[in-house]
Amino acid sequence: MPHIYQLFKGLEAKASAEIFTELLQGQQFRLERIVSTGQATAADTWYDQDEDEWVILLSGKACLHFADEAQAHELLPGDYVFIPAHCRHRVTWTDPEQISVWLALHIKAEPGKQHFTAPCKDAVNS
Amino acid sequence: MPHIYQLFKGLEAKASAEIFTELLQGQQFRLERIVSTGQATAADTWYDQDEDEWVILLSGKACLHFADEAQAHELLPGDYVFIPAHCRHRVTWTDPEQISVWLALHIKAEPGKQHFTAPCKDAVNS
Repeated sequence: MPHIYQLFKGLEAKASAEIFTELLQGQQFRLERIVSTGQATAADTWYDQDEDEWVILLSGKACLHFADEAQAHELLPGDYVFIPAHCRHRVTWTDPEQISVWLALHIKAEPGKQHFTAPCKDAVNS
Repeated sequence: MPHIYQLFKGLEAKASAEIFTELLQGQQFRLERIVSTGQATAADTWYDQDEDEWVILLSGKACLHFADEAQAHELLPGDYVFIPAHCRHRVTWTDPEQISVWLALHIKAEPGKQHFTAPCKDAVNS
Protein backbone atom coordinates (compact mmCIF):
# COMPACT_ATOMS: atom_id res chain seq x y z
CA MET A 1 0.00 0.00 0.00
CA PRO A 2 1.43 3.40 -0.89
CA HIS A 3 2.01 5.67 2.09
CA ILE A 4 0.69 9.18 2.26
CA TYR A 5 3.11 11.85 3.44
CA GLN A 6 2.63 15.47 4.41
CA LEU A 7 5.15 17.94 3.01
CA PHE A 8 4.51 20.60 5.66
CA LYS A 9 4.58 18.30 8.67
CA GLY A 10 7.18 18.35 11.43
CA LEU A 11 9.05 21.44 10.29
CA GLU A 12 11.14 23.52 12.65
CA ALA A 13 10.14 27.18 12.77
CA LYS A 14 13.75 28.22 13.25
CA ALA A 15 16.55 25.95 12.15
CA SER A 16 20.20 26.96 12.11
CA ALA A 17 20.52 26.08 8.42
CA GLU A 18 18.37 25.29 5.43
CA ILE A 19 17.15 21.70 5.43
CA PHE A 20 17.31 19.63 2.25
CA THR A 21 15.33 16.40 2.05
CA GLU A 22 15.51 14.18 -1.01
CA LEU A 23 12.10 12.82 -1.96
CA LEU A 24 12.73 11.06 -5.24
CA GLN A 25 15.64 10.30 -7.48
CA GLY A 26 16.12 8.68 -10.84
CA GLN A 27 18.70 8.44 -13.55
CA GLN A 28 17.87 11.89 -14.86
CA PHE A 29 16.37 13.80 -11.97
CA ARG A 30 16.24 14.41 -8.23
CA LEU A 31 13.30 15.91 -6.37
CA GLU A 32 13.93 17.58 -3.04
CA ARG A 33 12.15 19.60 -0.42
CA ILE A 34 14.00 22.64 0.87
CA VAL A 35 12.98 24.33 4.10
CA SER A 36 14.24 27.86 4.75
CA THR A 37 13.69 29.88 7.90
CA GLY A 38 15.51 33.11 7.23
CA GLN A 39 18.61 31.75 5.50
CA ALA A 40 20.03 33.16 2.27
CA THR A 41 22.82 32.22 -0.11
CA ALA A 42 26.14 33.41 1.30
CA ALA A 43 27.08 36.96 0.29
CA ASP A 44 28.67 37.32 -3.15
CA THR A 45 28.04 33.65 -3.84
CA TRP A 46 26.12 32.50 -6.92
CA TYR A 47 24.72 29.08 -7.65
CA ASP A 48 26.16 27.98 -11.00
CA GLN A 49 24.75 24.51 -11.54
CA ASP A 50 25.51 21.82 -14.11
CA GLU A 51 21.87 20.73 -13.99
CA ASP A 52 18.64 22.42 -14.95
CA GLU A 53 16.42 23.20 -11.97
CA TRP A 54 12.69 23.71 -11.70
CA VAL A 55 11.73 25.17 -8.34
CA ILE A 56 8.47 26.27 -6.74
CA LEU A 57 7.89 28.09 -3.47
CA LEU A 58 4.96 26.51 -1.62
CA SER A 59 4.85 28.48 1.61
CA GLY A 60 6.57 31.51 3.10
CA LYS A 61 8.29 34.24 1.14
CA ALA A 62 11.68 34.56 -0.54
CA CYS A 63 13.74 36.69 -2.90
CA LEU A 64 15.56 35.19 -5.86
CA HIS A 65 18.22 37.09 -7.81
CA PHE A 66 19.56 36.23 -11.26
CA ALA A 67 23.10 37.42 -11.99
CA ASP A 68 22.10 39.19 -15.20
CA GLU A 69 19.39 41.25 -13.52
CA ALA A 70 19.63 44.37 -11.42
CA GLN A 71 17.11 43.32 -8.78
CA ALA A 72 15.90 40.22 -7.01
CA HIS A 73 12.36 38.91 -7.54
CA GLU A 74 10.04 38.45 -4.59
CA LEU A 75 8.51 34.97 -4.61
CA LEU A 76 5.20 34.07 -3.02
CA PRO A 77 3.57 30.64 -2.61
CA GLY A 78 2.80 29.13 -6.01
CA ASP A 79 5.56 31.06 -7.82
CA TYR A 80 7.81 28.78 -9.82
CA VAL A 81 10.74 29.19 -12.16
CA PHE A 82 12.82 27.09 -14.49
CA ILE A 83 16.53 27.83 -14.04
CA PRO A 84 18.64 26.43 -16.90
CA ALA A 85 22.05 24.96 -16.10
CA HIS A 86 24.68 27.66 -15.51
CA CYS A 87 22.13 30.42 -15.13
CA ARG A 88 23.72 32.03 -12.08
CA HIS A 89 21.35 32.86 -9.27
CA ARG A 90 21.14 33.30 -5.51
CA VAL A 91 18.49 33.45 -2.84
CA THR A 92 19.00 36.87 -1.29
CA TRP A 93 16.39 36.52 1.45
CA THR A 94 13.89 34.14 3.00
CA ASP A 95 11.36 35.32 5.52
CA PRO A 96 12.65 34.76 9.08
CA GLU A 97 9.09 35.04 10.42
CA GLN A 98 7.63 32.06 8.60
CA ILE A 99 8.65 28.72 7.16
CA SER A 100 9.44 28.77 3.47
CA VAL A 101 8.98 25.38 1.82
CA TRP A 102 10.29 24.80 -1.68
CA LEU A 103 10.11 21.86 -4.05
CA ALA A 104 13.09 21.64 -6.38
CA LEU A 105 13.44 19.28 -9.31
CA HIS A 106 17.04 18.94 -10.50
CA ILE A 107 17.36 17.61 -14.03
CA LYS A 108 20.41 16.37 -15.89
CA ALA A 109 20.81 18.57 -18.96
CA GLU A 110 20.18 16.86 -22.31
CA PRO A 111 22.00 18.52 -25.23
CA GLY A 112 19.55 20.24 -27.55
CA LYS A 113 16.60 19.35 -25.35
CA GLN A 114 14.36 21.96 -23.79
CA HIS A 115 12.80 20.55 -20.62
CA PHE A 116 10.53 23.44 -19.82
CA THR A 117 7.31 23.36 -21.82
CA ALA A 118 5.03 25.95 -20.23
CA PRO A 119 4.06 28.89 -22.44
CA CYS A 120 5.89 32.15 -21.74
CA LYS A 121 2.71 34.24 -21.97
CA ASP A 122 1.73 33.13 -18.47
CA ALA A 123 4.87 34.49 -16.85
CA VAL A 124 4.31 36.84 -13.95
CA ASN A 125 7.33 38.96 -14.91
CA SER A 126 7.11 38.91 -18.72
CA MET B 1 16.26 35.83 -17.99
CA PRO B 2 14.19 33.05 -16.45
CA HIS B 3 10.49 33.82 -16.19
CA ILE B 4 8.57 33.47 -12.98
CA TYR B 5 5.20 31.73 -13.18
CA GLN B 6 2.37 31.34 -10.71
CA LEU B 7 0.88 27.87 -10.38
CA PHE B 8 -2.43 29.06 -8.91
CA LYS B 9 -3.03 31.91 -11.34
CA GLY B 10 -5.87 32.07 -13.87
CA LEU B 11 -7.69 28.94 -12.75
CA GLU B 12 -11.37 28.40 -13.47
CA ALA B 13 -13.45 27.76 -10.37
CA LYS B 14 -15.71 25.37 -12.27
CA ALA B 15 -14.44 23.69 -15.41
CA SER B 16 -16.31 20.94 -17.24
CA ALA B 17 -13.34 18.59 -16.98
CA GLU B 18 -10.03 18.27 -15.19
CA ILE B 19 -7.32 20.38 -16.76
CA PHE B 20 -3.87 18.92 -17.36
CA THR B 21 -0.97 21.26 -18.11
CA GLU B 22 2.48 19.93 -18.85
CA LEU B 23 5.19 21.99 -17.16
CA LEU B 24 8.35 20.03 -17.84
CA GLN B 25 9.35 16.93 -19.72
CA GLY B 26 12.54 15.00 -20.17
CA GLN B 27 13.66 11.62 -21.33
CA GLN B 28 12.65 10.00 -18.08
CA PHE B 29 9.94 12.17 -16.57
CA ARG B 30 7.03 14.52 -17.16
CA LEU B 31 5.80 17.10 -14.66
CA GLU B 32 2.24 18.31 -14.91
CA ARG B 33 -0.24 20.46 -13.07
CA ILE B 34 -3.72 19.01 -12.66
CA VAL B 35 -6.66 21.20 -11.75
CA SER B 36 -9.79 19.51 -10.44
CA THR B 37 -13.07 21.22 -9.60
CA GLY B 38 -15.32 18.40 -8.49
CA GLN B 39 -14.32 15.76 -11.05
CA ALA B 40 -13.50 12.16 -10.14
CA THR B 41 -12.22 9.11 -11.99
CA ALA B 42 -15.09 7.47 -13.89
CA ALA B 43 -17.01 4.88 -11.85
CA ASP B 44 -15.42 1.41 -11.73
CA THR B 45 -12.36 2.72 -13.56
CA TRP B 46 -8.87 2.32 -12.15
CA TYR B 47 -5.69 3.99 -13.28
CA ASP B 48 -3.18 1.24 -14.05
CA GLN B 49 -0.10 3.08 -15.26
CA ASP B 50 3.12 1.88 -16.86
CA GLU B 51 4.99 4.70 -15.14
CA ASP B 52 5.67 5.51 -11.52
CA GLU B 53 3.88 8.63 -10.32
CA TRP B 54 4.66 11.04 -7.50
CA VAL B 55 1.75 13.33 -6.81
CA ILE B 56 1.08 16.09 -4.29
CA LEU B 57 -2.13 17.98 -3.59
CA LEU B 58 -1.38 21.70 -3.18
CA SER B 59 -4.83 23.19 -2.70
CA GLY B 60 -8.38 21.96 -2.25
CA LYS B 61 -9.39 18.53 -1.05
CA ALA B 62 -9.60 15.10 -2.68
CA CYS B 63 -10.06 11.40 -1.99
CA LEU B 64 -7.70 8.80 -3.40
CA HIS B 65 -8.49 5.09 -3.40
CA PHE B 66 -6.02 2.25 -3.90
CA ALA B 67 -7.51 -0.95 -5.34
CA ASP B 68 -6.10 -3.13 -2.55
CA GLU B 69 -7.64 -1.05 0.23
CA ALA B 70 -11.18 -0.95 1.56
CA GLN B 71 -11.44 2.81 1.81
CA ALA B 72 -10.25 5.95 0.08
CA HIS B 73 -7.83 8.36 1.78
CA GLU B 74 -8.75 11.98 2.20
CA LEU B 75 -5.98 14.26 0.92
CA LEU B 76 -5.36 17.80 2.13
CA PRO B 77 -2.88 20.39 0.84
CA GLY B 78 0.69 19.14 1.29
CA ASP B 79 -0.26 15.46 1.22
CA TYR B 80 1.81 13.51 -1.28
CA VAL B 81 2.14 9.92 -2.34
CA PHE B 82 4.36 7.80 -4.52
CA ILE B 83 2.30 5.44 -6.68
CA PRO B 84 4.44 2.71 -8.26
CA ALA B 85 3.66 1.61 -11.82
CA HIS B 86 0.63 -0.70 -11.96
CA CYS B 87 -0.54 0.16 -8.48
CA ARG B 88 -4.20 0.59 -9.34
CA HIS B 89 -5.86 3.68 -7.96
CA ARG B 90 -8.64 6.14 -8.60
CA VAL B 91 -9.65 9.60 -7.43
CA THR B 92 -13.09 9.04 -5.93
CA TRP B 93 -13.84 12.69 -5.18
CA THR B 94 -12.51 16.21 -5.47
CA ASP B 95 -14.13 19.09 -3.67
CA PRO B 96 -16.64 20.86 -5.94
CA GLU B 97 -16.53 23.94 -3.69
CA GLN B 98 -12.86 24.76 -4.19
CA ILE B 99 -10.10 24.38 -6.73
CA SER B 100 -7.86 21.39 -6.17
CA VAL B 101 -4.40 21.84 -7.67
CA TRP B 102 -2.07 18.87 -7.96
CA LEU B 103 1.49 18.51 -9.14
CA ALA B 104 2.22 15.11 -10.68
CA LEU B 105 5.62 13.80 -11.65
CA HIS B 106 5.41 10.81 -14.01
CA ILE B 107 8.56 8.73 -14.12
CA LYS B 108 9.58 5.98 -16.52
CA ALA B 109 10.14 2.86 -14.46
CA GLU B 110 13.75 1.65 -14.24
CA PRO B 111 14.08 -2.09 -13.56
CA GLY B 112 15.39 -2.74 -10.08
CA LYS B 113 15.47 0.97 -9.24
CA GLN B 114 13.48 2.47 -6.40
CA HIS B 115 12.75 6.13 -7.16
CA PHE B 116 11.16 7.04 -3.89
CA THR B 117 13.68 7.80 -1.18
CA ALA B 118 11.69 9.40 1.65
CA PRO B 119 11.66 7.47 4.93
CA CYS B 120 8.48 5.56 5.70
CA LYS B 121 8.41 6.67 9.33
CA ASP B 122 7.03 10.04 8.26
CA ALA B 123 3.96 8.59 6.59
CA VAL B 124 0.65 10.00 7.72
CA ASN B 125 -1.10 6.64 7.34
CA SER B 126 1.62 4.24 8.53
